[in-house]
Amino acid sequence: MTNRHIVLAERPSGMVEESTTRIDVGPVPEPGPGEALVGVRYLSIDPTIRTWMDDAPGYLPPIELGETVRGAGVGEVVSSNCGRYAVGDLVVGFTGWQDYVLADEGAASMQVIPPGIDPPLVLSVLGVTGMTAYFGMIDVGGVAEGDTVVVSGAAGATGSVAGQIARIKGADKVVGIAGSPEKCAWIVEELGFDAAVNYKADDVATSLRSLCPEGIDLYYDNVGGPILDACLAQLAMRGRVVLCGAISIYNETSRPPGPRNIFNLIVKRGRMEGFLVLDYLDRFPEAQIDMVGWLAEGRVKHAVHIVDGLEQAPQALNLLFTGGNTGKVMVKL
Amino acid sequence: MTNRHIVLAERPSGMVEESTTRIDVGPVPEPGPGEALVGVRYLSIDPTIRTWMDDAPGYLPPIELGETVRGAGVGEVVSSNCGRYAVGDLVVGFTGWQDYVLADEGAASMQVIPPGIDPPLVLSVLGVTGMTAYFGMIDVGGVAEGDTVVVSGAAGATGSVAGQIARIKGADKVVGIAGSPEKCAWIVEELGFDAAVNYKADDVATSLRSLCPEGIDLYYDNVGGPILDACLAQLAMRGRVVLCGAISIYNETSRPPGPRNIFNLIVKRGRMEGFLVLDYLDRFPEAQIDMVGWLAEGRVKHAVHIVDGLEQAPQALNLLFTGGNTGKVMVKL
Repeated sequence: MTNRHIVLAERPSGMVEESTTRIDVGPVPEPGPGEALVGVRYLSIDPTIRTWMDDAPGYLPPIELGETVRGAGVGEVVSSNCGRYAVGDLVVGFTGWQDYVLADEGAASMQVIPPGIDPPLVLSVLGVTGMTAYFGMIDVGGVAEGDTVVVSGAAGATGSVAGQIARIKGADKVVGIAGSPEKCAWIVEELGFDAAVNYKADDVATSLRSLCPEGIDLYYDNVGGPILDACLAQLAMRGRVVLCGAISIYNETSRPPGPRNIFNLIVKRGRMEGFLVLDYLDRFPEAQIDMVGWLAEGRVKHAVHIVDGLEQAPQALNLLFTGGNTGKVMVKL
Repeated sequence: MTNRHIVLAERPSGMVEESTTRIDVGPVPEPGPGEALVGVRYLSIDPTIRTWMDDAPGYLPPIELGETVRGAGVGEVVSSNCGRYAVGDLVVGFTGWQDYVLADEGAASMQVIPPGIDPPLVLSVLGVTGMTAYFGMIDVGGVAEGDTVVVSGAAGATGSVAGQIARIKGADKVVGIAGSPEKCAWIVEELGFDAAVNYKADDVATSLRSLCPEGIDLYYDNVGGPILDACLAQLAMRGRVVLCGAISIYNETSRPPGPRNIFNLIVKRGRMEGFLVLDYLDRFPEAQIDMVGWLAEGRVKHAVHIVDGLEQAPQALNLLFTGGNTGKVMVKL
């Protein structure tokens, strides 16, 4: 029995390429006292993983060269030397891009998934992705009844849920920005967005002026770059911008200039705020209760995009930046 | 008796030039019923006036071509047909760049200055400039004990007061960014800032890393541009950026790109917020009471830079952008 792990071989310049990662094969780790061996079943593929590949300061340290690529995942306990994890338990945590990982009882490094919950849900709407949408829209954005809300990356794992939460919380209008006619159709027809802008075909600034003539009260930003700029230009009085991510810049070799329309934050008395969902870990349970209810009522729908095979993880990451996915990208081992 | 008024002759491209304005001479306006004639004594020269000269949407409409340049000022009532304004009263309001203006009782277009207050104070620390520092630092920035605070435009009318308010409110460290050794010496030695960075001589990013090694909790931005970018790069966890003005861009013919380091707002869970002091008009009295006390105790010091003669007003405006002033620029008629 061997453990394949995908390690960072060189720092990418732009998108992840063949030479960015390599597969090392080693022995399956032996669980010591207080440890359990976990066989990884699903990897969560998230844009933030790309930022960890750069040698730049961030909210977590960069992945070192030669280190297994960091990432969340779901696994199954296959052997155990501790009481916390029993053989057969499904667990979630930072598995990394590999076949096997050790769970540590003392550090509670993995969390046991309650029975009856579909493992991919734990990595999507009930996991970090959905929690990001929840706390970003409700706590940071303060979405309120009557708001005109715009969400970018709207067919992505977080954006698609963020827009639906805005609707649930009484937003008057929810506009999504996505990158294909199919994605635009999905968020309007399936998810109940009021309108969609295809940023690859339409002029975003013009579309927003026409769709949000009174201005944008709340912009939930997953992409940064020119779309952020267009939304700032159309901000309503006391408009809020929630900075959740900036996928448009993660593959840039040098950081591109920021939005020209920042000055509009003064004219419109606007606010722009960044956040990380890691700061809300202790409030996940309350959000998960809401989310389970909304899923059951059909008020939140979601999509998963499953890629097969550990060795496909690097290409799965690129999907997030080429727009090749609708909904949450996961790798199934 | 004639009334000279400086009108906008053409929209400036960059700094105000000879051809931007012209002096028209007309009759002194006749006060009708409910009106008073005010002889203008001081003009308040503020960076925002430059933004009104552009044909661009803003928080107030652009000044029209041929229209008298808009601006605040202090005047003296020289004749009156109403009870609100008595001959000899000093009044403050939007006088415009001219010798005489009518005050309108019904609209309460000008406010009577209580006796005993030096007129220039009403245009500086007790007026819009000081109120901007007060509400920007306290209400928008939420300055708190122990904060490391950075202020740009720190030798200007607003920045110099903002830094002193931060100190009064318990900031642990107050760093000012200004444009000459003399200004830097003034804010440190006279105003009690802990340190100063001369942005024309020093690398701001390097200086801030060295002066604020734990990061900037609160950055009060008067300038925008590269200095805003350098401060975003050095933001502390949960740092706040107060956008008060952006004098570095007001003379640009096209809006320059924004700060590259906006992404740091996510990493540091930071907040950037714009404001206009006009939204705080009803709270001016409470702030003025604080400010009068601080002036009396010597805890707030200020400087005025007085330029003589109405015809000098356009050049006085340029001083704000060339850095030719320390403290509040006014024109004395």
